[in-house]
Amino acid sequence: MPAAPDPGLAPVPPVVPPRRAPGTLRVALLGYGVVGSEVARALVEHADDLAARAGARLELVGVAVRDASRPREGVGTVVPADLLTEDAQGLVDRADLVVEVMGGIEPPRSLIRRAIASGASVVTANKALLAAHGPELFEAADAAGVDLSFEAAVAGAIPIVRPVRESLAGDHVRRVLGIVNGTTNYVLDQMATYGVELEDAVKEAQGLGYAEADPTADVEGFDAAAKAAILASLAFHTRVSIDQVAREGITGVTSADVTAAAQTGYVIKLLAIAEQTAEGVSARVHPALVPAEHPLAAVRGAFNAVFVEADGAGPLMFYGQGAGGRPTASAVLGDLVSAARDRLAGGKGAYESAYASLPVLPADAAVTRYQVRLVVADRPGVLAQVAGVLADHGVSIDTVRQAVDEVPAPFTPGDGSAGSAHLLLTTHAAREASLASTVEALRGIEPVHQITSVLRVEGV
Amino acid sequence: MPAAPDPGLAPVPPVVPPRRAPGTLRVALLGYGVVGSEVARALVEHADDLAARAGARLELVGVAVRDASRPREGVGTVVPADLLTEDAQGLVDRADLVVEVMGGIEPPRSLIRRAIASGASVVTANKALLAAHGPELFEAADAAGVDLSFEAAVAGAIPIVRPVRESLAGDHVRRVLGIVNGTTNYVLDQMATYGVELEDAVKEAQGLGYAEADPTADVEGFDAAAKAAILASLAFHTRVSIDQVAREGITGVTSADVTAAAQTGYVIKLLAIAEQTAEGVSARVHPALVPAEHPLAAVRGAFNAVFVEADGAGPLMFYGQGAGGRPTASAVLGDLVSAARDRLAGGKGAYESAYASLPVLPADAAVTRYQVRLVVADRPGVLAQVAGVLADHGVSIDTVRQAVDEVPAPFTPGDGSAGSAHLLLTTHAAREASLASTVEALRGIEPVHQITSVLRVEGV
Repeated sequence: MPAAPDPGLAPVPPVVPPRRAPGTLRVALLGYGVVGSEVARALVEHADDLAARAGARLELVGVAVRDASRPREGVGTVVPADLLTEDAQGLVDRADLVVEVMGGIEPPRSLIRRAIASGASVVTANKALLAAHGPELFEAADAAGVDLSFEAAVAGAIPIVRPVRESLAGDHVRRVLGIVNGTTNYVLDQMATYGVELEDAVKEAQGLGYAEADPTADVEGFDAAAKAAILASLAFHTRVSIDQVAREGITGVTSADVTAAAQTGYVIKLLAIAEQTAEGVSARVHPALVPAEHPLAAVRGAFNAVFVEADGAGPLMFYGQGAGGRPTASAVLGDLVSAARDRLAGGKGAYESAYASLPVLPADAAVTRYQVRLVVADRPGVLAQVAGVLADHGVSIDTVRQAVDEVPAPFTPGDGSAGSAHLLLTTHAAREASLASTVEALRGIEPVHQITSVLRVEGV
Repeated sequence: MPAAPDPGLAPVPPVVPPRRAPGTLRVALLGYGVVGSEVARALVEHADDLAARAGARLELVGVAVRDASRPREGVGTVVPADLLTEDAQGLVDRADLVVEVMGGIEPPRSLIRRAIASGASVVTANKALLAAHGPELFEAADAAGVDLSFEAAVAGAIPIVRPVRESLAGDHVRRVLGIVNGTTNYVLDQMATYGVELEDAVKEAQGLGYAEADPTADVEGFDAAAKAAILASLAFHTRVSIDQVAREGITGVTSADVTAAAQTGYVIKLLAIAEQTAEGVSARVHPALVPAEHPLAAVRGAFNAVFVEADGAGPLMFYGQGAGGRPTASAVLGDLVSAARDRLAGGKGAYESAYASLPVLPADAAVTRYQVRLVVADRPGVLAQVAGVLADHGVSIDTVRQAVDEVPAPFTPGDGSAGSAHLLLTTHAAREASLASTVEALRGIEPVHQITSVLRVEGV
């Protein structure tokens, strides 16, 4: 290889002016809630920077709301009042770029289809819609040659959709472990830090605005399940819908579980997990014991983080705010600038990649580890009997620990627990189905007084 | 806003076959070291997946090396031996996509210019080249309408270039704090964990292959400075070259510094810092005290992490492996797939964004905090005298701590230190220039026997 520059090197072409024709793209905003109002404000207040980055002015041509007459913060000051409209369809029809931050399935689904059909690119933060109806929308966008971007749908401000889809396009993702719901992470963190019970932590989260009046979508894991479906689809180039995500929320987690976890070197987190095995892919959401030294264990409060294991890259983690108006608006605006650039360049960005079409496995095919806390009769031979049940189900034991004093049990003496011992049993990795039937069998043998908790162990 | 779908909704166009014509793109690989060999292997072994993701087969048409006759691992088995060539120019001339992983300024600079001039897109991992000659190369690529991608140039496998450039395109980045050199992070981590001195930790890093035989580029901060220049350019839409990065390596850090840091709740990290203030932007590299509870403090061993503070997104962190053949190859391959897609779509990806052209500030304009350890005469009135020096320079004191026993000093009694006391002085934020002249003035007053260490505090 020559060590010196080639004197006959072809000259580099002279610098030409930026190829971006001055121009304007019309932006329709659907929804003016915590996210929509921040998107609107940025479009107005940072118009010059956005124009320089997008290559054209992003002109907010309208904001669709349910009731245009209702007073709203920023309307009439930041955003001209006459931009508000109740005619979302009419607004969509006169836009080049449509931002959907209404939430819910309808009308967003129809409005997005309409936007795509009219040739507009779409940016959405709507995880529930994508997890349920993503394929039909992606197919429509791909066929129309327009962008359908959704960075804001997973983990708020954290860039994760683009990194998984584009930065890791030359790699092979094995597993994704995500703390993708800030409310439940806040609740579990409060339980771990202050020893409070779940209900009280949820009430506190509601008081701070982290949790809705009806916290079901968060605490039962529905929100995380939608994100798990999206992450699994991206990571494995395979369509995974929310119906295929096994889901368990945090409502069964007690402060005793959290304390026992801490005593054994773990932290309890609600994880969205997407995994590929030799048999296919799986996605699931459940509370899990994460080793205290794992990077995910250090994710406190309402923060989110997504841990990715890839063959080439190795472990990666993406950390930041997973919700809130400004963080989510940041992700929306990043997508909007990209969509504008793609449009000006006459192309579109990423297409849906579902070529691998791997089998999506049922929940009980997942391979995981259990940590089981149980109360047993305190007499010789009991441990052998318990171990026998596991062996019969093909599950091998990693560690057994007897912890009479350390682990508080959720009952008081006098209920028949005299002469009992607390066992903490951690299994090796085994199929979910075998583990579940093992626990069932343990329940059925005499020396087992109580199964205090069953938690999966992840990140080991 | 209508709550039901519009019955008159325009039908979504039928799904058409993927728009990507089956075809092949010719890939030239310049360099077959730890990264190049992994890129070659992936191109051969994962050809089908890469083709599905890129939309065309990525055919490795040649590998340029200095001496094609030298035996190399994988050549003749994974990679056909006849692909090796010493004619890098000839190889570049027959490629659609050129991957440059040779390192150094020449011949990579000439070869990349040649590739761009011939209409090929380029993927490079060469931070030194970009930090020194980025503008000329980006201008050439923009003028030619080809991609010049460099995710692998900063923090190895960690997606950071794309997130800062694209995901945060609608946000306003305030500050970037990066642990972007794995060697120095490993060395500092060993010092903190085992109390060893720098020299010994460097030797250990060399033994493990983390450090070069000549570790200057790492320990003196040159490698980190190149990355700081690239990050500052991306974050602030302003050209920042390596010459504009203030640089201080870790060679002055002693195990006593590391111990003192731990005792006061800090960890010492070598940081690449890019910052925007009202006056302009600055980039610098130096060892810094990071609070133990800051996410960067938990980055252990040879890992890298980049912490970004943006107005909208808030704090973000990207964590992973910053070096090594396979991780760096992962980043290269991600760029390669994107470059292929852009090419097939007839466009190019991101253009250089330097529209803001903010002033790049000199090193002494940075605003930071100092923690100064000093040995002073142990008598009344000394503290007042020291405080007076700071006040004279307009620097205010955050905390003063007298620490006779806790902090080991790097000298032994009998050298005149009898009757002395150790002070640990932490300032409030002030201009670097004022802080530096304050330290100089402290050196000049009688009761100050010794300035044991001066470290900046970041991340507070």
